[in-house]
Amino acid sequence: MPLDDTRYLKGGPVAARIIAEVRAAAEKAREEGFPPKLVSITVGDVDAVDVYVRNQRAKAGKAGIDFEERRLPAETTAGELEAAIHGMNADPRVTGIIIQRPVPVHIPIKAIQAAIHPLKDVEGMHPASIGNIVYNQLDLAPCTAAASVELLKETGMDLKGLEVVVVGHSEIVGKPIAFLLMSEGATVTVCHHMTRSVAAHARRADALFVAVGKPRLIKADMVKPGAAVIDIGINSETLPDGSTRIVGDVDTDSVKEVASWITPVPGGVGPVTVSILLRNTMVALNRQRALYEATYGTSNRIAAE
Amino acid sequence: MPLDDTRYLKGGPVAARIIAEVRAAAEKAREEGFPPKLVSITVGDVDAVDVYVRNQRAKAGKAGIDFEERRLPAETTAGELEAAIHGMNADPRVTGIIIQRPVPVHIPIKAIQAAIHPLKDVEGMHPASIGNIVYNQLDLAPCTAAASVELLKETGMDLKGLEVVVVGHSEIVGKPIAFLLMSEGATVTVCHHMTRSVAAHARRADALFVAVGKPRLIKADMVKPGAAVIDIGINSETLPDGSTRIVGDVDTDSVKEVASWITPVPGGVGPVTVSILLRNTMVALNRQRALYEATYGTSNRIAAE
Repeated sequence: MPLDDTRYLKGGPVAARIIAEVRAAAEKAREEGFPPKLVSITVGDVDAVDVYVRNQRAKAGKAGIDFEERRLPAETTAGELEAAIHGMNADPRVTGIIIQRPVPVHIPIKAIQAAIHPLKDVEGMHPASIGNIVYNQLDLAPCTAAASVELLKETGMDLKGLEVVVVGHSEIVGKPIAFLLMSEGATVTVCHHMTRSVAAHARRADALFVAVGKPRLIKADMVKPGAAVIDIGINSETLPDGSTRIVGDVDTDSVKEVASWITPVPGGVGPVTVSILLRNTMVALNRQRALYEATYGTSNRIAAE
Repeated sequence: MPLDDTRYLKGGPVAARIIAEVRAAAEKAREEGFPPKLVSITVGDVDAVDVYVRNQRAKAGKAGIDFEERRLPAETTAGELEAAIHGMNADPRVTGIIIQRPVPVHIPIKAIQAAIHPLKDVEGMHPASIGNIVYNQLDLAPCTAAASVELLKETGMDLKGLEVVVVGHSEIVGKPIAFLLMSEGATVTVCHHMTRSVAAHARRADALFVAVGKPRLIKADMVKPGAAVIDIGINSETLPDGSTRIVGDVDTDSVKEVASWITPVPGGVGPVTVSILLRNTMVALNRQRALYEATYGTSNRIAAE
């Protein structure tokens, strides 16, 4: 089907809406003396990272959020990186901190991620951020998980009582999608590589999320007619002529004839993810601001730079 | 069936085993200069709390863990309580802190719970503790959730690929059970009051956990033959003669004819819960000790009191 088929749940328009909302909030905050700023940390040289960072910088610009890139040499130690993060944690001009992945193998990424103060954890990956979602504080979640849920909401389906199946139980995608949707009233099942029959679960899902990294894992006979299918996989596939293309975890060509909605790959969850990062930045700014104002009062604002 | 029927998954023997394990670890830690100590905080006078505290004190004694009770008057403010907790967070003689519930209505219990340092959070309720479980660090979980999972393990069932249904999606019972079991390889579905058909899910469960607080919600026709049923409900029921008794969320008399294992209420999850609190205390002690030794070295130990 052509990409303008209404069954495609495309990320672009959703991302544009979120970025416009963020821009309005960011401009207001800046006028009030709280300019939002994202700091991106890159360790070493990785070409793929450069692509991400350029994209984040461009989108931040559209959203009215300052973007600063700090590039650290590949030989930076974990201690040096942690010290740099502690400095940013204490710097009131820094709203949010992103660690670009991959990092060199000598950097323990989970420990480093946890060194970011939860109030500046715009990627939503700190254990306390994850725990807060479990406690139904849903406004700051890991970006890909939140983007996937945002796309499901775009269908207009009522989440209360919705039968949801999540294939993939990673800590920052599958599990947070599950908790986000449990809090919205859905009945959620999480499947993974040890599940006896993924198909048996997938077939009864009103909404099916797939995040496992296996090209075309989900076929048409695994999807309930009329379901919404959110494809979070990003896999590189080599064609017979030697060229490569990006495909998801869902066999889109067959599944689109069964599902009522399906996210394309690329162009589905991906574009929304960056917009969620920017929205998380405003959530972080508002929390920092609330703490600041609770501590110092509202009359004594930080001057804009 | 009589209570010595092997289909009953009784909490007593499991609790006794855990307490014996804790006692061995506690004695060793004490000899090495790290005596474990639990501090219980009670705000106001509540008879039900006294029963809990007496039980915790008795079990702590059996496990070789010091137990100190701090009783604060009912008019204690949230700020005063938080200050008391900060003092205990900084006191190296305090291993773990328990806030006894209920607290007076003017105390925001979630905020107070989050004031306990994660390293001393023996109840496993701090958002960071919950987040750590999501990140597969499973040794410190909310006590009731961990006790329920412990009882399932007692059946010897292989958790990998096991079809688990959890009825009830509370933050400190249903959801943590779900991600503890996801991390062990089970396929988990969480149902709740918005689920279209709890029965349809419950009937396909190899292991069924119920924590909703509705007496006899789960009947025999909602249980798969041969399943393990873990009943976490504690409900008070008034009999025709005016006396009361405690019943769970499962209609035990009918379900026991279908299930292969069922936890009695009382005498199932309850006794195990306190033993998990004590085990959590040793996990907390070991984490504090690891931090202490990483900071000061292993030769410079705190003297035993």
